[in-house]
Amino acid sequence: MYENIKYQLNTLKNNKAFELSVVAVIIISALEIGAKTFPLSSGAISVTHVLDIFITLFFLFELSVRFIADEDKKRFFTKGWNIFDTAVVAISLIPINDSEMALLARLVRVFRVLRMVSVVPELRVLINSLLKAMPQLGYVILLMFIIFYIYAAIGSFVFKDINPKLWGDIAISMLTLFRIMTFEDWTDIQYETMEVYPMSWVFYLTFIFFTAFAFLNMVIGIVVNVMEDERSKLRKAKEDAQNVPTIEDLHNEIQQLKALIVQQQRNTVDVSQKDSII
Amino acid sequence: MYENIKYQLNTLKNNKAFELSVVAVIIISALEIGAKTFPLSSGAISVTHVLDIFITLFFLFELSVRFIADEDKKRFFTKGWNIFDTAVVAISLIPINDSEMALLARLVRVFRVLRMVSVVPELRVLINSLLKAMPQLGYVILLMFIIFYIYAAIGSFVFKDINPKLWGDIAISMLTLFRIMTFEDWTDIQYETMEVYPMSWVFYLTFIFFTAFAFLNMVIGIVVNVMEDERSKLRKAKEDAQNVPTIEDLHNEIQQLKALIVQQQRNTVDVSQKDSII
Amino acid sequence: MYENIKYQLNTLKNNKAFELSVVAVIIISALEIGAKTFPLSSGAISVTHVLDIFITLFFLFELSVRFIADEDKKRFFTKGWNIFDTAVVAISLIPINDSEMALLARLVRVFRVLRMVSVVPELRVLINSLLKAMPQLGYVILLMFIIFYIYAAIGSFVFKDINPKLWGDIAISMLTLFRIMTFEDWTDIQYETMEVYPMSWVFYLTFIFFTAFAFLNMVIGIVVNVMEDERSKLRKAKEDAQNVPTIEDLHNEIQQLKALIVQQQRNTVDVSQKDSII
Amino acid sequence: MYENIKYQLNTLKNNKAFELSVVAVIIISALEIGAKTFPLSSGAISVTHVLDIFITLFFLFELSVRFIADEDKKRFFTKGWNIFDTAVVAISLIPINDSEMALLARLVRVFRVLRMVSVVPELRVLINSLLKAMPQLGYVILLMFIIFYIYAAIGSFVFKDINPKLWGDIAISMLTLFRIMTFEDWTDIQYETMEVYPMSWVFYLTFIFFTAFAFLNMVIGIVVNVMEDERSKLRKAKEDAQNVPTIEDLHNEIQQLKALIVQQQRNTVDVSQKDSII
Repeated sequence: MYENIKYQLNTLKNNKAFELSVVAVIIISALEIGAKTFPLSSGAISVTHVLDIFITLFFLFELSVRFIADEDKKRFFTKGWNIFDTAVVAISLIPINDSEMALLARLVRVFRVLRMVSVVPELRVLINSLLKAMPQLGYVILLMFIIFYIYAAIGSFVFKDINPKLWGDIAISMLTLFRIMTFEDWTDIQYETMEVYPMSWVFYLTFIFFTAFAFLNMVIGIVVNVMEDERSKLRKAKEDAQNVPTIEDLHNEIQQLKALIVQQQRNTVDVSQKDSII
Repeated sequence: MYENIKYQLNTLKNNKAFELSVVAVIIISALEIGAKTFPLSSGAISVTHVLDIFITLFFLFELSVRFIADEDKKRFFTKGWNIFDTAVVAISLIPINDSEMALLARLVRVFRVLRMVSVVPELRVLINSLLKAMPQLGYVILLMFIIFYIYAAIGSFVFKDINPKLWGDIAISMLTLFRIMTFEDWTDIQYETMEVYPMSWVFYLTFIFFTAFAFLNMVIGIVVNVMEDERSKLRKAKEDAQNVPTIEDLHNEIQQLKALIVQQQRNTVDVSQKDSII
Repeated sequence: MYENIKYQLNTLKNNKAFELSVVAVIIISALEIGAKTFPLSSGAISVTHVLDIFITLFFLFELSVRFIADEDKKRFFTKGWNIFDTAVVAISLIPINDSEMALLARLVRVFRVLRMVSVVPELRVLINSLLKAMPQLGYVILLMFIIFYIYAAIGSFVFKDINPKLWGDIAISMLTLFRIMTFEDWTDIQYETMEVYPMSWVFYLTFIFFTAFAFLNMVIGIVVNVMEDERSKLRKAKEDAQNVPTIEDLHNEIQQLKALIVQQQRNTVDVSQKDSII
Repeated sequence: MYENIKYQLNTLKNNKAFELSVVAVIIISALEIGAKTFPLSSGAISVTHVLDIFITLFFLFELSVRFIADEDKKRFFTKGWNIFDTAVVAISLIPINDSEMALLARLVRVFRVLRMVSVVPELRVLINSLLKAMPQLGYVILLMFIIFYIYAAIGSFVFKDINPKLWGDIAISMLTLFRIMTFEDWTDIQYETMEVYPMSWVFYLTFIFFTAFAFLNMVIGIVVNVMEDERSKLRKAKEDAQNVPTIEDLHNEIQQLKALIVQQQRNTVDVSQKDSII
């Protein structure tokens, strides 16, 4: 009987209408969250309470269907997206009365919108490509962090007394440097320190130069990666199409031709020798 | 007689001088609109009135010519640019006296300048490439919207009381986030919320990181698309040039050679056998 | 005797030391211009007067050498850089006493620094590539101008009374839109108009979207152009290296082989027929 | 015995655990520097003093190991990274009591973090690629400097009296222009000068256009360089794989075939002639 339920749930899971209804409920949940940010009438608030319960139950139902329908229960929780879905549903189930926790409960519900990514495969591919690109860019990010760290240390040693709000300690200095990297009112910071240290523009200009270069390096790295991926896909596609001959095939064929002609030549010579013998 | 008129109008439509005069009238219309934004003498204003009537009549005439000269009347209004042209001309014809509507009338006339795009084919190609690129980028835009939506929901839940002008509801929050994405005075917003929630810089930095990555993804997507288009064009151009042999052609030719040699070998063997028979 | 002078000047013109001394004088001229922006002692000012006369005379001498050494006097003034050099030298020669004109004289001397570009060939190549890229990008720039024009017209019709300094007429509006495109305090402008027209954010967001897209199009256009140039150079380099055979050459060679074998076959058949006749 | 020590130190130098402990000490040194920017208790300060001595001694030890283990003592100081390491260690050894110099001592210790780059090979590669790219971009940077210099000279001649803080002399003007290039509050500068010279927007717009173009040129230059590097690596990899035949090999093989057939034809003709003679 369990197998029967499992089979029926699997059918339901792969049903197009069911998939679309999941997307629909996620959209409703997103709209509800958006609506809550506006001032609502008490009638509308009670509607959102009912909606909240419905959405939580629906997500619980959908997750149960996916879990029961899964062939390999052990592997179910090794997939990041399944863990994410379960966590979101589980936290939604905790009853929250405390006003302190009310904000947290709302925030968790916001992450329900992220379930859109776990449900739509194309979005999952995009996020995965982001996660995959991370380690390749690791050393550029490390270099950038070292640049930030050194400049932040120098900044807080030298400029601390000029403006402790911007250069108070190394953490605040790194935030200030990020602000400078986005060119956001960076000249105000520069003019302030230049009044005490007139040469401090060197600090800012070299920082902008180094981070811009590291950033450029990162972008080019990504572009080159993407293009190499494309090229290797193309090459594989070519190799899979086996009927198209390569230069190597031609080489082999010409070798066979040569062997044929050489053999023929021997035969002809034989004939002529026989002739001459005759 | 109708056919005769249609033929003559078609000749007129494809006349180079007529096309240029349409462009000229659009430029005059653009200059007139520009002139109206400056304070004008009463004489100049009456000139613009006359010009307005002339431009409206000319556009009506040109549209009629294009419509009558068209072979397939039904398909005329299935083309976006024709609908656009007709709408602009039609609205220009409505007599407007009400001062409220005067602004609207002016705005509609501004869109006459867009007729430049519907008349110059090269510009039409550019706009079409924009519209074509949209669906391909659909999922990246959807992902970006989800990121915006989640951050806007969090922002208006957590920061609402700090600055309702920036984080009042989810719509205002999304506008604020767009401002942060353009790095426009984003640190002012950050410092304001950091006074209440010192860790809120995480909110801003992760948002900037995610949107920058999604944007980069989009740009790379467009670049890769453009390059693939170029490459497929190149490949097609190569295939169209039929006289240039491919490796496959060489393969076939070598096969024929081999067949010839094998046949010859048999002949030679025949000869030698005949010889030996003799 | 004139031919003799011409020959000697040509030798001088192509002399490496002479070329370097021209570069040196341009650098001195640049340093002098820079020095003049600082407050100078009366001694230093008289030095700059002497330097000015020396530089003017040297440039006059160098231009004369180049003109006399030129084979084709008529074509000398058809080259843009020669006209530029002559204009700079000619204006330097005009004696200026009037204080009004003093500023102009200084400005003209600033353009002497641009002579660096006309003297160093690598810089000339860079500038020429800029000028060459212009017409190819013509339609994108035209599209961008139309977008600017339409938005500026709408802006000055609708927002004129809100802030005439920013939206007074179509020219000022276009400058304001350029500022918005660079994201420079654009939200201040937006918030100002949103107080009167709450929906005016649509105006700004669509404008930013359209110009960003047109700009992206432009950049991609340039990149694709550059890459195609590189590829066509590569192809040409390959074709110039005549010893490297192409697939077409192989095709022809195989055809010759086939002809040879067919001819041989006929001969063999002839022989065998002769044999059988015998 | 010296050889014995040298051999043992070389073994130590290449020991994975030793390499990791060097990285660990650099990280500790970085954390210590960061900690010093926060207000510390007297206990913590004495800990940093001990740590400082330990780190200095460890770096001295590590450098000695690397120096003694090196085969070629003379070449040791021709490598940039070795000179850098020695300088950092040497300056750390100088005892500093003067409060003036205390800041300098701290700054030198900050550069210990840069030792991370000299120790991790992947980061060294990144920095070297930066240094390698510099000369290739030399002419674009020169062009950019000329643009900056000319605009700064014009700016300080014309706008000096409007705002000496921004346009006082050519050095300050170049800093102001860099600010304009980063779009940081550039319209404030523009509006200020436009009150005196209404046409001065031409100055700013052309400057932004030229620098943006030069910058774009630079980016494209880097991208094209990177791609060419990739391509030449690919080509070299192909050439190294010697077993893969090229079109040139095929050409040679077909030539040999032709020679064989021609020779065979002569033989056949000889045979037939002999036959006919017979």
